[in-house]
Amino acid sequence: MPDKIDPPHATGAAEDTVKKHSQPHDLVFHAGWFCPFVQRVWIALEEKGLKYEYREVNPYQKEPHFLAINPKGLVPALEHHDKALYESLVLLEYLDDAFPSPRSLRPTDPHELGLVRLAVQHISNVVVPAFYRYVQAQEPEKQRDGHDAFVAALRDVQAQWFVGEGAPWARGDHFGWVEAVLGPWVARFALLEQHRGFSASDVGDEFAMWAQRVLERPSVKATSSLPENYESVYRRYFEDTAESEVAKATRKGEWLK
Amino acid sequence: MPDKIDPPHATGAAEDTVKKHSQPHDLVFHAGWFCPFVQRVWIALEEKGLKYEYREVNPYQKEPHFLAINPKGLVPALEHHDKALYESLVLLEYLDDAFPSPRSLRPTDPHELGLVRLAVQHISNVVVPAFYRYVQAQEPEKQRDGHDAFVAALRDVQAQWFVGEGAPWARGDHFGWVEAVLGPWVARFALLEQHRGFSASDVGDEFAMWAQRVLERPSVKATSSLPENYESVYRRYFEDTAESEVAKATRKGEWLK
Repeated sequence: MPDKIDPPHATGAAEDTVKKHSQPHDLVFHAGWFCPFVQRVWIALEEKGLKYEYREVNPYQKEPHFLAINPKGLVPALEHHDKALYESLVLLEYLDDAFPSPRSLRPTDPHELGLVRLAVQHISNVVVPAFYRYVQAQEPEKQRDGHDAFVAALRDVQAQWFVGEGAPWARGDHFGWVEAVLGPWVARFALLEQHRGFSASDVGDEFAMWAQRVLERPSVKATSSLPENYESVYRRYFEDTAESEVAKATRKGEWLK
Repeated sequence: MPDKIDPPHATGAAEDTVKKHSQPHDLVFHAGWFCPFVQRVWIALEEKGLKYEYREVNPYQKEPHFLAINPKGLVPALEHHDKALYESLVLLEYLDDAFPSPRSLRPTDPHELGLVRLAVQHISNVVVPAFYRYVQAQEPEKQRDGHDAFVAALRDVQAQWFVGEGAPWARGDHFGWVEAVLGPWVARFALLEQHRGFSASDVGDEFAMWAQRVLERPSVKATSSLPENYESVYRRYFEDTAESEVAKATRKGEWLK
């Protein structure tokens, strides 16, 4: 089990963002700079323009203080006025519940919100597991299957939940939950390009343009470290030797297909 | 693949409830009388005192009309003013978003709501898969492991998310989401008692008293069919020959542990 993350802190634009949020605050964001589940919440914090204190946690070294916040010892977690919550999707809900202004990432219309929640569920249950199966596949045939399943999962998201018709974002004119929830994996497409020959245009041109907009979004840039640092963390995933909870579950085939 | 549910409709108290909701209405509840995911939403509809039209769907016969509502062809689904949504947890959110009065099953305090969402996630990701692994286990040793894992998962729910101290319901004085989300499986404890020797008091006396209160709750009774009819539907699960999506995923070991 690796007990060190190298580098131990964010780099590039994300390092600047961490520095801006280094002062004590009653909203504490327990994070890991390399973790896409963390980045979901980080994107939301930045989109909403909230003040918060960023604290780097090494999830491989489960410290007693942090286990009191999240019994699973996993980031992301939030403490707000000393009350803790965790799990990225629960935290996205919380941020819009607790800070409805200046801007909510959730739509207000109940049916529209329901559609977004369905998209989020599909991303979490199908797209994300397909990403890790693709990344961790070692044999060429399994990599091809991994590619096709990942592309199919993304096409499903687009076909069912992108409004299309020239809209810049999945649900229309506003960067929202679909972008916050899927965006961190879009920010890791470059790793898939290098190691597996994936391209966002394999999904389709419209999707590739959406992905490019996500990459250029200030909240995504401000929460992204330098490419070479993701490379060093994710190498273990591409070699299928990573020991995170996600990597182990993927290896054991425990994620729903 | 079985294509018939026997009986094809609700019985007992649930049959009376179906009859009360047989008139056309702009809120249509697409349901399967035997399905615990359906019962989650049914309990919420009854708790909230909403008017709705109940329609029985056989999820094993995927009709084109229903596939247009839910591409997965699964119940529960809701149509409201001809707009469709599905997935039990998305529907519970929707009902409280669209009908905040006369009563919400969700708490209003953001942190309290976050805790409830964590409990719901644990129930969905850990308790429910443990239920099916226990039910579908055939060898005595696997049944013992299944029992212990199911009891441990329920104890976790209680330890982490029941406020205790004599409160009648998980989060205090109000029957809420924890009850609506876990209640349908509590209503199926009797099957586990008969086939596997399970008892709610294996979890603990406090938990057994909570489970008894759930069983006696009018919304749970009004959405429950006769015990012998659950028996006939669930026999295939206990023999591990069921062909539902849940049963197949369990058999393949695809659910997170």
